[in-house]
Amino acid sequence: MNDYNHPAARYYQEVSEQCIHYLSIDGVIFGFHQNQLKVLLLRWKGTNEWSLPGGFIRKIESVDLAAQRIMQERTGLDALYLQQFHVFGEAERYNQEETWGKINLPLQNVNWSARTISIGYYALVEYSRVVPAPDFLTEECRWWNVEAIPALLFDHNHIIQVALQSLRKQLNDQPISHLLPETFTIPELQRLYETILGSTLDARNFYKKIMASDRLERLSERRAGTPHKAPFLYRFKSDNFTTE
Amino acid sequence: MNDYNHPAARYYQEVSEQCIHYLSIDGVIFGFHQNQLKVLLLRWKGTNEWSLPGGFIRKIESVDLAAQRIMQERTGLDALYLQQFHVFGEAERYNQEETWGKINLPLQNVNWSARTISIGYYALVEYSRVVPAPDFLTEECRWWNVEAIPALLFDHNHIIQVALQSLRKQLNDQPISHLLPETFTIPELQRLYETILGSTLDARNFYKKIMASDRLERLSERRAGTPHKAPFLYRFKSDNFTTE
Repeated sequence: MNDYNHPAARYYQEVSEQCIHYLSIDGVIFGFHQNQLKVLLLRWKGTNEWSLPGGFIRKIESVDLAAQRIMQERTGLDALYLQQFHVFGEAERYNQEETWGKINLPLQNVNWSARTISIGYYALVEYSRVVPAPDFLTEECRWWNVEAIPALLFDHNHIIQVALQSLRKQLNDQPISHLLPETFTIPELQRLYETILGSTLDARNFYKKIMASDRLERLSERRAGTPHKAPFLYRFKSDNFTTE
Repeated sequence: MNDYNHPAARYYQEVSEQCIHYLSIDGVIFGFHQNQLKVLLLRWKGTNEWSLPGGFIRKIESVDLAAQRIMQERTGLDALYLQQFHVFGEAERYNQEETWGKINLPLQNVNWSARTISIGYYALVEYSRVVPAPDFLTEECRWWNVEAIPALLFDHNHIIQVALQSLRKQLNDQPISHLLPETFTIPELQRLYETILGSTLDARNFYKKIMASDRLERLSERRAGTPHKAPFLYRFKSDNFTTE
């Protein structure tokens, strides 16, 4: 496996020259579909091993722009809503030999860092707009329910857990409107809160609180195709779309 | 100023060999004294220029441990309560030439990074236990009221603002007990909340909410040396001292 011409070896050589060593970005891309919170994962070529999307920061690029670039490549979307949530900086985050063995990459000859510190970002995206795309190291990119994520490469299960905890804590500060289509019913919004929080909420209390927060606007239309007493449609008032 | 033997040049040479390039840690050390929130700042040798304490991460050291080491050196305290709050990753965070000119360091000959990404940590410390200590680049280390901080070197005014915003948002999740002596009165605790939030609170509501949170324990003693109707002393229940 000492193949300098392997695309992975060439990729890491290029990264080694143009990007900042010891530092990477990992992305937890959250979507919401059929009442379930989902995360976008990649399957590595010729394996059944999955990981989060990630990448490196160019020496001349801001960290936020690197994160945008990396997530854009996997989703097809630009100007994503991103939130930095944690730096994973342990000296030994995972067993490197075991991990690289699983994905069988010829990295022995690449001048690569012995260690990587990862800046975690999560993205809140509208599921239906994403066109999942693998990169050249991977052959499948698809959504997984957060409740059914397999054992991932690296420390990526841990990263997802920390992202989820962070999203839960910030639920009322984050523009979770990005996870929804423009219009939605109150029960749909409640289900989004419930799936993020991992617990059920009382419908009457939820309605009271969400209306009191004055973030929603009721439309004159109702959800089409539902039996009689169809629920009203709502949307977030426009200032809730503001990102940091 | 092409002096390889200047202690600063030797320091940066050593850092360049042993530490991770392009990456640093900046520390916002918060203390609370005489009803004021304070931050520990350093004055650079032979100048009237101030900055936050900071430092670099050794190649074999976790990011959290590097932050502990850096803050310990300036405060004399170990096992500090630290909270990572933001990565400052702009490609050009400040005018480098202007900044380095102000502190007059002979860095032309050092193989140093063109750019630094900084991981911001804040520390919550008990003011009275800190013994402020400058490093070899600085000649004074002292507390400043957050409301009276001068124009700082680098982008450190911005970093303090982001730390404060983060502390405000997380006020009820953070063990702010670390900012207080073991025992305190309710009005003292209220003043701490007010100074962090930058606004006054209604005493009766504050008392009701803080007691409802069930985080405090009332002692049988009262504050000594106060006129009659001396207020009771309280302390945080021990599980509130837990750090992440």
